[in-house]
Amino acid sequence: CRQKLTFENLIDEEVAKLLELKAQLGGDDGKHQFVLKTAKGTRDYNPKQMAIREKVFNTIIGCFKRHGAETIDTPVFELKETLTGKYGEDSKLIYDLKDQGGELLSLRYDLTVPFARYLAMNKITNIKRYHIAKVYRRDNPAMTRGRYREFYQCDFDIAGQYDAMIPDAECLKIVHEILSELDLGDFRIKVNDRRILDGMFAVCGVPDDKFRTICSTVDKLDKMPWEDVKKEMVNEKGLSEEAADQIGEYVSMQGGMDLAERLLQDQKMCQSKLACAGLSDIKLLFSYLQLFQVTDKVRHAVVFDLSLARGLDYYTGIIYEAVLTQAGVAPVTAEAQNGAPGEESVSVGSVAGGGRYDGLVGMFDPKGRKVPCVGVSIGIERVFSIMEQKAEASAEKVRTTEVQVMVASAQKNLLEEKLKLITELWNAGIKAEVMYKKNPKLLSQLQHCEESGIPLVAILGEQELKDGVVKLRVVATREEGTRTSTEGVCVCVCVQFSL
Amino acid sequence: CRQKLTFENLIDEEVAKLLELKAQLGGDDGKHQFVLKTAKGTRDYNPKQMAIREKVFNTIIGCFKRHGAETIDTPVFELKETLTGKYGEDSKLIYDLKDQGGELLSLRYDLTVPFARYLAMNKITNIKRYHIAKVYRRDNPAMTRGRYREFYQCDFDIAGQYDAMIPDAECLKIVHEILSELDLGDFRIKVNDRRILDGMFAVCGVPDDKFRTICSTVDKLDKMPWEDVKKEMVNEKGLSEEAADQIGEYVSMQGGMDLAERLLQDQKMCQSKLACAGLSDIKLLFSYLQLFQVTDKVRHAVVFDLSLARGLDYYTGIIYEAVLTQAGVAPVTAEAQNGAPGEESVSVGSVAGGGRYDGLVGMFDPKGRKVPCVGVSIGIERVFSIMEQKAEASAEKVRTTEVQVMVASAQKNLLEEKLKLITELWNAGIKAEVMYKKNPKLLSQLQHCEESGIPLVAILGEQELKDGVVKLRVVATREEGTRTSTEGVCVCVCVQFSL
Repeated sequence: CRQKLTFENLIDEEVAKLLELKAQLGGDDGKHQFVLKTAKGTRDYNPKQMAIREKVFNTIIGCFKRHGAETIDTPVFELKETLTGKYGEDSKLIYDLKDQGGELLSLRYDLTVPFARYLAMNKITNIKRYHIAKVYRRDNPAMTRGRYREFYQCDFDIAGQYDAMIPDAECLKIVHEILSELDLGDFRIKVNDRRILDGMFAVCGVPDDKFRTICSTVDKLDKMPWEDVKKEMVNEKGLSEEAADQIGEYVSMQGGMDLAERLLQDQKMCQSKLACAGLSDIKLLFSYLQLFQVTDKVRHAVVFDLSLARGLDYYTGIIYEAVLTQAGVAPVTAEAQNGAPGEESVSVGSVAGGGRYDGLVGMFDPKGRKVPCVGVSIGIERVFSIMEQKAEASAEKVRTTEVQVMVASAQKNLLEEKLKLITELWNAGIKAEVMYKKNPKLLSQLQHCEESGIPLVAILGEQELKDGVVKLRVVATREEGTRTSTEGVCVCVCVQFSL
Repeated sequence: CRQKLTFENLIDEEVAKLLELKAQLGGDDGKHQFVLKTAKGTRDYNPKQMAIREKVFNTIIGCFKRHGAETIDTPVFELKETLTGKYGEDSKLIYDLKDQGGELLSLRYDLTVPFARYLAMNKITNIKRYHIAKVYRRDNPAMTRGRYREFYQCDFDIAGQYDAMIPDAECLKIVHEILSELDLGDFRIKVNDRRILDGMFAVCGVPDDKFRTICSTVDKLDKMPWEDVKKEMVNEKGLSEEAADQIGEYVSMQGGMDLAERLLQDQKMCQSKLACAGLSDIKLLFSYLQLFQVTDKVRHAVVFDLSLARGLDYYTGIIYEAVLTQAGVAPVTAEAQNGAPGEESVSVGSVAGGGRYDGLVGMFDPKGRKVPCVGVSIGIERVFSIMEQKAEASAEKVRTTEVQVMVASAQKNLLEEKLKLITELWNAGIKAEVMYKKNPKLLSQLQHCEESGIPLVAILGEQELKDGVVKLRVVATREEGTRTSTEGVCVCVCVQFSL
């Protein structure tokens, strides 16, 4: 009985402890510990990265405008059903919004489907437009390879009923111009046609209902050796070994206009009218590319490659993809070096892709009216990574502001005078800064110029105020001179920037 | 009996019809009828709207850069908890993402909270940055008044421990510069201080725990008459009639530096140290604004207005808001004219707002370290509406491309020659277009120039090819001349554009 009492005491004690613990836990709920991070697969851009981004965008937009494109913008989310049935197996990667009452919404997965929706909605039958915006995919992020869940696409598309391959060739010319201008090293643009792929599948004995899924498997050839791709076709997709081998022969072929000509003579390939139409268009495309001075480059080759498949469902004709081929362009960041062994080996990859999608707009039109489209999307994140790496390696400092002159003071109590002067400068359109302190030291004002690359300092001192002048100093050379008026200062800034 | 048979026949017929109808309906389920629209409260931007948007952004970015700001970017969604507890009663308007496994995410509601998160995460204690991006609010859209669920904010913020009111005054200078430069007519910038509001509530006898909710009610004074605001205070929020009347007296006050001086002598207001600190700062602010040449404008007034409250929880000091005051600037669209009577009457509203938020960064810092911040946000959608309206009213056509020259042909079968010429032009950096047809009519090529405002046409004909020249025509004047080389064409284009 005594033992039982002790036992009961023990239990009471334990219960009390547990209750206290529970109370403590309850108290902690109030001052909840914060997780300081961005969402998985996303990142902030700091000012240095933004300066690089601005430069890259200016190059790309410059090219799009040179080719006469207008621009549009669409909302970041669409009705969920707008995106349904457009992306094949990738649809599972779409971000949905929570049902908070009202419409069911999803974040855009690319800029092509919203573009097609826009065309159908506004009954537009021809337009040449570019669109630069972020898209969203719940993919497995690989930030070291520039693969994010939120990333920019830079799209250029031509919609309209035109003569064959002229707009298609211009899209490739644009990829060529942009990649050359960005100076990313050697690259290769692979070209193929959905009709050639489908024709090839047909003549190799792939059943009609397996075209899309076999196409997805072929698409993996840039990441897997043929043996593994074949295994997937035979074991997982149930294709006959014979059919797979025939496909294997074709998809190992690469060439130029000559290959298209050769395949037009190919006994087996010729059985497919679809393939023939595709091959004739490839020939025509290469003839236009020659006129555009795109094919004659050795380091920037355009290649007809039968292994190129591309995953998205909506392509109907020509497809293409650009890859950087030079060794050493892989964005190797601290993360890659520390964490993920082996990642580097696959890091040189696609930087642009696109193709013809003649059926997509019709899917949105109530009467199914088709608007033929062809376009290209520049995958800019990888380009950013490379440019950042280059900037890091270069001795030149990236400026994050454009300030031309700092308004500084040599003595105390000159804030009023400085604010008056900077007002005149701003009103004259000069980019100018002043420290937000009543009495900053001259040294710290000069240091700020050095750090942020401001080339000129306008120094006010008691003597200058007496004389009615401003002392102007070139930060790099320490040369000094005086100006008698704000106008004089402005002129000097303009001269310095050769404006 | 015969009648009965006829009757049965009729019934059979009706049943057959209904079954057929049912079958048809079932069949329709397959080809599901599409809703062609953007999500509620959002819109596309067409090329014309984009051209206007680009112009407005250039003005704003130009101003931000003139004041030495860097720029950053953050993801469109944040961890849900990052946004929690920052927006007071407005938190219900936040868009959440669906829980698809992984983190709980929400679309950003403004750019200020992500900025504070960025500063705390990267331990940045001073920066002057701008950020232009879309934000998301599940508000009741009023598109005719430029109120959308997806809209742009253009934010400029100064973070850092500085001397009082210097950065705050620069923010107001920036609002003043931008609104003046955009040429939107008269405007008024209202200024107040959270400390003055809180001090005023204290001396008027508002209980501490009712400060925020009474503040929200005061915030409605720009949309509701004082009588209704008072009713809400007394009946809904349970304030004494006496306290409400005292508040009513203060919030009717407007002025400049003189009003701040007068209130510093006010027997009752003086009882609050907080209010006194705020009033002294208002005085200092106005003295800086004078140096910045902001206060001496009649049509663009800065006013100390005790009724300005602003809804967001995070403000701690100076607050301000800019409103367009000129009659007739209301964006009256077709929608407003047809559909929503009475909306126009409240359509002249806030185009910029901001204030000081010294505690927000500390809410994110694990050790609660504070980084004082002040900033301003330009609400650009309303500005777009006004600019669009202006463009609509003006005779001048808005160009949506920058094409300088169209490469055209006078006869058939000249596609090759045209593609060669345009390649030379593109390579020389000229913005040029060619029609995507093998044999377009000269008239349709010239019409395209007229429609899209292309100033020059380079015309190739058999005679020109024989002579080795290009005919160049100025579209507006129909003047024609010949050039002997691509270089000659380029020079001519440059002269035309005075490059």
